[in-house]
Amino acid sequence: MKQKRIAIIGCGLIGQAWATVFVRSGHHVTLYDKQDGAALQAVVQIRERLVELHEHGLINSSALQRGHDLLTVASTLKSSVSDADYVQENGPENARIKSELTRDIDRWSPPGTPIGSSTSGIPASVYAEQIDGRSRCLVVHPINPPHLIPVVEIVPAPWTSRSVVDEVKGLLDSVGQVPIILKKEIDGFVVNRLQGALLREAFQLLDQGVASREAIDKAICDGLGIRWSLLGPFETIHLNAPGGVADYVHRFGKMYSEMFEHTNEPADWHAVVSAGLEAELIEQQPLAEIGNAQRARDVALMQLLAARLQGKLEYTTDV
Amino acid sequence: MKQKRIAIIGCGLIGQAWATVFVRSGHHVTLYDKQDGAALQAVVQIRERLVELHEHGLINSSALQRGHDLLTVASTLKSSVSDADYVQENGPENARIKSELTRDIDRWSPPGTPIGSSTSGIPASVYAEQIDGRSRCLVVHPINPPHLIPVVEIVPAPWTSRSVVDEVKGLLDSVGQVPIILKKEIDGFVVNRLQGALLREAFQLLDQGVASREAIDKAICDGLGIRWSLLGPFETIHLNAPGGVADYVHRFGKMYSEMFEHTNEPADWHAVVSAGLEAELIEQQPLAEIGNAQRARDVALMQLLAARLQGKLEYTTDV
Repeated sequence: MKQKRIAIIGCGLIGQAWATVFVRSGHHVTLYDKQDGAALQAVVQIRERLVELHEHGLINSSALQRGHDLLTVASTLKSSVSDADYVQENGPENARIKSELTRDIDRWSPPGTPIGSSTSGIPASVYAEQIDGRSRCLVVHPINPPHLIPVVEIVPAPWTSRSVVDEVKGLLDSVGQVPIILKKEIDGFVVNRLQGALLREAFQLLDQGVASREAIDKAICDGLGIRWSLLGPFETIHLNAPGGVADYVHRFGKMYSEMFEHTNEPADWHAVVSAGLEAELIEQQPLAEIGNAQRARDVALMQLLAARLQGKLEYTTDV
Repeated sequence: MKQKRIAIIGCGLIGQAWATVFVRSGHHVTLYDKQDGAALQAVVQIRERLVELHEHGLINSSALQRGHDLLTVASTLKSSVSDADYVQENGPENARIKSELTRDIDRWSPPGTPIGSSTSGIPASVYAEQIDGRSRCLVVHPINPPHLIPVVEIVPAPWTSRSVVDEVKGLLDSVGQVPIILKKEIDGFVVNRLQGALLREAFQLLDQGVASREAIDKAICDGLGIRWSLLGPFETIHLNAPGGVADYVHRFGKMYSEMFEHTNEPADWHAVVSAGLEAELIEQQPLAEIGNAQRARDVALMQLLAARLQGKLEYTTDV
């Protein structure tokens, strides 16, 4: 694989994780953040992440050493993107700011270099409409934390060129991510729509007093989530009836549709939070310890990834 | 722990998995199925499951040997439950049949023995209303396959006694399952309502041509499902904003509520199945190979469980 020059614009948690994704595969990464010192601080964080990946057997020693040397800090946006093969922008979730930032990247980066945005909510057709090089703009939305969760949503605008989509998909494939391409723009894309649909029901069950917060969390992490870490929702139901998915829908379709017939209006999430959800979660996980809890989650994810990479958890019919 | 006598009524896949749960922990299990030879056939299957659990380090050799000796086949329903400490009924999903079966179990089992049903759709207030011993009837709903997925939903009817609920919870805790208690009956209980909410959105995304079946499956099994195998949905969002769950809802609540504002009617699942979903899943996983695929899934689940039991994937803040 040819070594690429990747520009990471915006060096918060998501930018740092993206940088980790690219340097661990041997690409050169240039970091830029308009806040003084943020990019330099990010280098320290990214190096720590590489050390952790090495400790969990996810990268070897030479990749660890090499990773340290592949990070560069740029002092201006212009210099960070001027020779980039790919730009990943991680700016604030604000259409106007994102539009201006993308315009500047478009002005200063080599023509044809794809410009991906980590936005979880603003489609490229909104922030890139007025950009000269809009055909190379697209959403490249990761799941937090992207160096440990492989899925990435590629969401082109109607005018994004197919070759740009293919190039970004190829790059993500080559660094071990799992890119999925959306065929059209939609609010929340696919991942957050699926998460949102489940959260809506979870908030409603809590609001209606059907089960405790703890019970609902366990229903997922000791139940559905275990199965879903191996198989997607369609693959899951295909295996849950002797005649596959058609048989499953024949058996349970009516149950599922009746289940939601008498559904009230969705619960007010803010009200549920105030009524006790926040207090309970904070009791279990105080705000001051959220950083530690995130690191604990990431350690568990690395152990899970290590098991998957050893082929142990690969889903296969060859048994 | 005192050895219990467990009666398993109905020896299909779910009954076999329940039997595996109880014998691997050293309880005595009596199997009954009204179909001639089914219980005897189930013994063979349960022994195979124990061998697999042993191969994956989930039970030791003595538990394997002991398990083989703890299985008994009863030739009548009456004899299967006459000295049972707990009865798990896995009959057909039909309210009338379940009602009659439960009446017979109630007649022949010792007074006070809890009678749990594996039903995924019929609340105890429906099938047990006319039963003399209805205070000991309740839904004890597992996720397939229950010997590998720990969550179990305990759903009491309004008249189920609290001591019966507590006794069943204690038994399930003691055999390594993760029981959750619902505070009220609701169609689909908690697990299938959460699964149904996600499936509804998945079917709609496919129907509207937003993404391919494969992309939607990957969004879960290479994305959200990985996180959800460690943390429930509330625990997940509590870690995804610096100020915890309240901050998360403040930042993203509007995005999620707007996401579903313009939602069309839910897709017709049967139509989606016919329009290509079935063909595609069958191409990947032919019906004749579903049995193999289920075994492959279960092998992957055992490897995941083994990693969890080694404490490797335990979620902890102590890092």
